[in-house]
Amino acid sequence: MRCLPPLAVAVLAAVSAVRAQAPADEAVRVRAIFEEAIVRGRAYEELRTLVTNHPGRLAGSKNLAGAVVWAEGALQRAGADRVYRQDVMVPHWERGAKETVTLHAGGTAQPLAAFALGGSVPTPAGGIEAGVVEVKSLEEIAALSREQVAGKIVFFNRPMDPAIIRPGTAYSTGVGVRSRGPSAAARLGAVAVIVRSMTHALDDLPHTGGTTYAPDAPRIPAAAISTLAAEKLSAALAAAKNSGGAAVRVALTINSRWLPDAPSHNVLGEIRGTEFPERIILVGGHLDSWDVSPGAHDNGAGVVQSIEVLRIFRALGLRPRHTLRCVLFTNEENGLRGSLAYAAAVRERKERHLIAIETDNGGFQPRGFNLGSTQGDLHERATARWAPLFAPYGLNTFVKGTGGADVGPLLAQGIAVAGLTPDSQRYFDYHHTTADSIDKVHPRELHLGAGALAALVWLVDTQGL
Amino acid sequence: MRCLPPLAVAVLAAVSAVRAQAPADEAVRVRAIFEEAIVRGRAYEELRTLVTNHPGRLAGSKNLAGAVVWAEGALQRAGADRVYRQDVMVPHWERGAKETVTLHAGGTAQPLAAFALGGSVPTPAGGIEAGVVEVKSLEEIAALSREQVAGKIVFFNRPMDPAIIRPGTAYSTGVGVRSRGPSAAARLGAVAVIVRSMTHALDDLPHTGGTTYAPDAPRIPAAAISTLAAEKLSAALAAAKNSGGAAVRVALTINSRWLPDAPSHNVLGEIRGTEFPERIILVGGHLDSWDVSPGAHDNGAGVVQSIEVLRIFRALGLRPRHTLRCVLFTNEENGLRGSLAYAAAVRERKERHLIAIETDNGGFQPRGFNLGSTQGDLHERATARWAPLFAPYGLNTFVKGTGGADVGPLLAQGIAVAGLTPDSQRYFDYHHTTADSIDKVHPRELHLGAGALAALVWLVDTQGL
Repeated sequence: MRCLPPLAVAVLAAVSAVRAQAPADEAVRVRAIFEEAIVRGRAYEELRTLVTNHPGRLAGSKNLAGAVVWAEGALQRAGADRVYRQDVMVPHWERGAKETVTLHAGGTAQPLAAFALGGSVPTPAGGIEAGVVEVKSLEEIAALSREQVAGKIVFFNRPMDPAIIRPGTAYSTGVGVRSRGPSAAARLGAVAVIVRSMTHALDDLPHTGGTTYAPDAPRIPAAAISTLAAEKLSAALAAAKNSGGAAVRVALTINSRWLPDAPSHNVLGEIRGTEFPERIILVGGHLDSWDVSPGAHDNGAGVVQSIEVLRIFRALGLRPRHTLRCVLFTNEENGLRGSLAYAAAVRERKERHLIAIETDNGGFQPRGFNLGSTQGDLHERATARWAPLFAPYGLNTFVKGTGGADVGPLLAQGIAVAGLTPDSQRYFDYHHTTADSIDKVHPRELHLGAGALAALVWLVDTQGL
Repeated sequence: MRCLPPLAVAVLAAVSAVRAQAPADEAVRVRAIFEEAIVRGRAYEELRTLVTNHPGRLAGSKNLAGAVVWAEGALQRAGADRVYRQDVMVPHWERGAKETVTLHAGGTAQPLAAFALGGSVPTPAGGIEAGVVEVKSLEEIAALSREQVAGKIVFFNRPMDPAIIRPGTAYSTGVGVRSRGPSAAARLGAVAVIVRSMTHALDDLPHTGGTTYAPDAPRIPAAAISTLAAEKLSAALAAAKNSGGAAVRVALTINSRWLPDAPSHNVLGEIRGTEFPERIILVGGHLDSWDVSPGAHDNGAGVVQSIEVLRIFRALGLRPRHTLRCVLFTNEENGLRGSLAYAAAVRERKERHLIAIETDNGGFQPRGFNLGSTQGDLHERATARWAPLFAPYGLNTFVKGTGGADVGPLLAQGIAVAGLTPDSQRYFDYHHTTADSIDKVHPRELHLGAGALAALVWLVDTQGL
């Protein structure tokens, strides 16, 4: 240590002290949990079954109903001593026959790889054909006049910002054109909207995702096209502008429909607590997925990891002091009704939750947790107490956060939350596409995530927050 | 902070102090380096060219010679102001016509997916057919008698230990059966050796890799079979034993040959230092690969990342004080002759190196560095000074290490070394196989690694060690 400045000595002394604080048997237990997860893990095989037999688990679909039954079985296989459903009415949107987007430019007609956005209204029979206005952002469309936009298809060609290190952040900052772009364009008289898919990848996979119509705007059809198709459309628009040639036109057909709300279910499985059965530690993810996607990373991974937490407790003979509850939420993708219904029931029943832990960022190598609480800086306490226990497994970041979409309403009720943070560089390559399939999930990475969740649950159960 | 124990306060205060210590412009510069890497990175496109045009770059091959010429061009494109070769004679082993391993059991003959181990002698004309002795380890073979082994094929069926979190560690602790197994079996009269491929994946890809014959043992042919083939062979042996049926036999043909040493080259590119041109900061990887593999992660990734460091310096107008030297070593896989020749030249010319940084663990998301020095705890100093600068980019681990195989001889000469540590869960799925191809490399992950290398080089150049 001869070359260390005093500061470094302080850091190292502090780290050593943290390690010294952790009883050896605590590290041994965490090690046993991770080992059970990666050596005898069942999550990957469960995920294979889920995405093979129940892909496209959108709210209202038969596939989601099938996944509910599968989830009950999986929770029982994992050793839950109580498995039950919470009934939830969910929105029911169907894509209908395959949508088409066709580029008419330079005397040719070229199909562009596209998916209607979730929730989009259909085009009129026969579709829509119109000229195109390309913009990059909501700010750019807001700066245009009605004359410039009326009767046109607005094309939001906003790439995800590659300079942002975490793709999730680039997604969050860029997704506004998908969720709010259609209404922004409709207010100026646009007849339809096309958005560039939300991904860093330059390929021909369209990415769907929800859009939301504002009450004050006409509802116009909206679709996402692949990033390669976006480049092609943009190039055609530039070429037509530069040559003064015939205007580029795009034809669009969407065959979606809205149906009455449909019955669905949150699926819950519990291991009853030995000391404080009325106090709950929640771990969960969402069971639904977009209709076009197998939903392996989003969020089959989170589902099987959450179930696996119960199995790991059973396999190791760990008897939780508090009730360990796995909650598989319905309808995260296009409504969040499962989450809202769960939070409403918690409030109504005055159920006590120590923490609600979500996993909905893919089944990649876990890197840490985000933690949030209305009662102080939970992430700082977690870092100080638990970071050394997780470091051997590659989890180094404990940051302030809000858990995730499904546990958000619980945080609003004052319940502490956490969310698993895996590596995210690959996530948006597959997100909301046909390519979010089992071959994109690595068994050991998935199982390390399950181990991390089980370890956090065990630490909260034995030590509190 | 009201709930923080004093210890946590100490940790947080220390971390804050480290951050405060780092001048703001230092973090800004590191940010600019990473941004150049991920927004305008060229490494992925260079890698595509390398592995498409020059796959299977084994020592002595035409493909390696082609890669040498490609590397000179790539270093020039990156902006090196001097590009040159160091001549190195390398071993020259050729696989020859495709090897075969055939399982004869239960009256059927089944081909097993196999590759001869690198360096294996050929089988006699017509091949070898013999009964099989299955063992798990070098210890197990050592416990057998000559009577049990003589005339047999020894099958080392040792899975990589799934309980070890880092696959690289599981590989290191398990690879002895591949490198030393053939001689251990030959000493007891075995006629050939088959090893289970070194991977956690259960699939039908055989993984080659070098074997080494001991001087005191007959040289017998040796091949690796896929993990699925290993399971099949093991099951056939168990079935024959349990049923008392006809013994299982395996037939093996290997058509390899050893040729005289061949000329090859380390390829070097430099940006001359402005203040201390005679002092060198080295960054490098190895240009060769196994003959059967495109060598995208092993080690095309390291090659293009090392070259990219020069490009990033040029693109940002950074003029290094010390000479920045990119070294692309030849013959890491089956001889290390490039590394040894480089180290010998350094000693002979009395060249001064501040540090030699290696990247040879794949192009996955970077997690940190290993650092080694004969002059004290370099990793602790690096952690204290630089860890906060790297954390925003996902690099959290600075551990003690030996850099990597190619810089090892420099460490032995007293030069400080470092090695980039990427995520490793996927690496051994592809390692030394036909599947180590460009589609397994993620552009942003690769580029983040290049950014990490460039940032470390810049910090060493401006601040010293």
